[in-house]
Amino acid sequence: MASPEPKTLLRSLFQAGLDAANPRLTLPGFLPEPGKGRTIVIGAGKAGASMAKAVEENWSGELDGLVVTRYDHDLPEGEKCRKIEVVEASHPVPDAAGREAAERILQKVQGLNEDDLVLCLISGGGSALLSLPAEGVSLEDKQAVNKMLLKSGANIGEMNTVRKHLSAIKGGQLAAAAAPARVVSLLISDVPGDDPDVIASGPTVADPTTFDDAKAVIAKYGIELPASVQAHFDKASPETPKPGDARLAGNEVHMISAPQASLEAAAKLAQENGVTPLILGDSIEGESREVAKVMAAMARQVATHGQPAPAPCVLLSGGETTVTVRGKGRGGRNAEFLLALAIELDGAADIHAIAGDTDGIDGIEDNAGAMVFPDSLARAAAKGTDAKAHLANNDAYSFFESIDDLVFTGPTLTNVNDFRAILVLPKA
Amino acid sequence: MASPEPKTLLRSLFQAGLDAANPRLTLPGFLPEPGKGRTIVIGAGKAGASMAKAVEENWSGELDGLVVTRYDHDLPEGEKCRKIEVVEASHPVPDAAGREAAERILQKVQGLNEDDLVLCLISGGGSALLSLPAEGVSLEDKQAVNKMLLKSGANIGEMNTVRKHLSAIKGGQLAAAAAPARVVSLLISDVPGDDPDVIASGPTVADPTTFDDAKAVIAKYGIELPASVQAHFDKASPETPKPGDARLAGNEVHMISAPQASLEAAAKLAQENGVTPLILGDSIEGESREVAKVMAAMARQVATHGQPAPAPCVLLSGGETTVTVRGKGRGGRNAEFLLALAIELDGAADIHAIAGDTDGIDGIEDNAGAMVFPDSLARAAAKGTDAKAHLANNDAYSFFESIDDLVFTGPTLTNVNDFRAILVLPKA
Repeated sequence: MASPEPKTLLRSLFQAGLDAANPRLTLPGFLPEPGKGRTIVIGAGKAGASMAKAVEENWSGELDGLVVTRYDHDLPEGEKCRKIEVVEASHPVPDAAGREAAERILQKVQGLNEDDLVLCLISGGGSALLSLPAEGVSLEDKQAVNKMLLKSGANIGEMNTVRKHLSAIKGGQLAAAAAPARVVSLLISDVPGDDPDVIASGPTVADPTTFDDAKAVIAKYGIELPASVQAHFDKASPETPKPGDARLAGNEVHMISAPQASLEAAAKLAQENGVTPLILGDSIEGESREVAKVMAAMARQVATHGQPAPAPCVLLSGGETTVTVRGKGRGGRNAEFLLALAIELDGAADIHAIAGDTDGIDGIEDNAGAMVFPDSLARAAAKGTDAKAHLANNDAYSFFESIDDLVFTGPTLTNVNDFRAILVLPKA
Repeated sequence: MASPEPKTLLRSLFQAGLDAANPRLTLPGFLPEPGKGRTIVIGAGKAGASMAKAVEENWSGELDGLVVTRYDHDLPEGEKCRKIEVVEASHPVPDAAGREAAERILQKVQGLNEDDLVLCLISGGGSALLSLPAEGVSLEDKQAVNKMLLKSGANIGEMNTVRKHLSAIKGGQLAAAAAPARVVSLLISDVPGDDPDVIASGPTVADPTTFDDAKAVIAKYGIELPASVQAHFDKASPETPKPGDARLAGNEVHMISAPQASLEAAAKLAQENGVTPLILGDSIEGESREVAKVMAAMARQVATHGQPAPAPCVLLSGGETTVTVRGKGRGGRNAEFLLALAIELDGAADIHAIAGDTDGIDGIEDNAGAMVFPDSLARAAAKGTDAKAHLANNDAYSFFESIDDLVFTGPTLTNVNDFRAILVLPKA
């Protein structure tokens, strides 16, 4: 079989990953039949506006609703929702706009009856955007506990146990408030493991953890609680709804997009092009340039030894790498990953790569990602661009800009984290 | 099929890797028939003593020889070579003992005839141990150039081009000196790519690079040459033997052990135990704790999605990770990798791992490596051992010592870098 043209194939794989993360394409198939009563759409997250739009475009019947998304994450003028109100608020640090939206969302689902339907649209960032302290707890005290938790060494499960018990909305409390209406939650995951309980701290999902569990975490890490939080923990009420809670009976939760689904979509397309896909992981973390070293070695192993699979082969992975910024250059984690990869591969023939953020914005730049080819370093050197110097200065954006290998998609208004594809072709 | 007992299986996989790296086991099969004339054994590297012993044990006929190894790398009393002299010298910084040994090795191969056979035993570290400056170049000037090269950003190929042209023995010059005797080189690789030309700077392998190439590297990186080196480069003589050089005709080069061979041996044993082996790479580099994050994510992918292969599955890899030391604890790169892996896996059921240095010494401790089990963190916590604090203090040795999960082999007198195996069993 003729080898596929690498640049075209890699762009197609990335696009397949983006399409699988796009609620405009994935959400409609998960919409339930309209109920006999009212339909209320609520939600929170960075994909809030595009998820709401996907409902509006595909719903036959009346709609009313409110979703909260991040600042600058509403749809452009002319495409905005007409029936569902979209409010913008602060992420990752909650602000008054988010708090007010959370209160209004909680009000919207009250007083419903069992013929009514609540569509709850949740995506990454929803936890901060849908932030409503438990009664009696101040926003400042809640944030103070959050900061202490982050520093404490507690794992994500322990942190969420505490967070749910500081909130008036998380840990299934939003769904409990909507009872007896039926709640159908449509989720986009950006967390390792895709646990509905973890995504946005599970506002519509029963919470197996208790106030006692939360207190145990606080004690374990020696966290000193502010007075308002201490009082709330002493009162230990209202408890979050537990699995089996009658108020949540009949509810449904559907994952409409997730990192794994995007990797699977790319894998399918690779296979159709005669390229063996190897999905390495949907939640790969680590310092970008170190992750690049590992992946470069894996690509070399495919090229040299045909392991774990012979070329043509594509190594697919998701997750979020991190960049410890030491320099003053431009570029997000995907560009940094790719620049380090290019340096490690040092012009290795037959190895090509793409990486990008599925939200369309790599870090704070205007590109989604970039691409690496066997001649990337040579083309850069010919223009006087020194790859190692650019990496040392965290200036991967400028590196790829200089050789015109940035990848642009514009903001996608969804997010299933990063997408990486390293294509190893047979020796020419 | 019953799942294998993880601890026993992982120890066996590591042992299979060590056996494949052990010249006492691998070298005999590569020994040529004795010639009509004399047999001279020469060599250099950290495995020098065990390689020489393997020749002595399996050679029928007279032998004479000299190999140089690293201080404390000779065999123990009672096992030492009887016919082949083993000299110890300094590594990684060359010293007078190494220089003297190199001179004597060069003398030993002079005046031979075409009926004579030279067995040249080369392993990692051979480059520093077999260090003889070109005529007219001082050891200090040679080392000064080496230091500047290391800082310059030159890649390994460029550095070796210069090094070979500063030496009286590298880049095939040792083999040229032995002509017309037949030279059979037996190599243990510890370099990515296993290039005979690169291992110990290829003293018996023709050198495609020239003085002009070396001068181009010096110019590219703006290195200021000391006077003795400048004079040698101006004279540009003697040039290293080039591919096709008649003096090297009829010579043979055999790789008797290499990282990939050890991984393949472990893979074979895994397969025999009903476990799918995935060889990720024989030359994986990167900061130990970051490499651990990537591998933890890959192990989770096997466990959760059965990708790239379903459990039972073992992820095998070699290479050398690095540790940026910030704390004051004990432990080499393999222990640090494993501690970070345990923290990332956070008690994930059904995932077990071993990692160790095939030279039997992880860093500067007495252990070869360690093991990780699903209950490692819990057992440590029960003893008051805090995993994250130990990692922060680069104190992985103490962590694994506290739960009795260090792995000891003693010095193996060979080296094909690190060996890692992460075993993912089906859900119990």
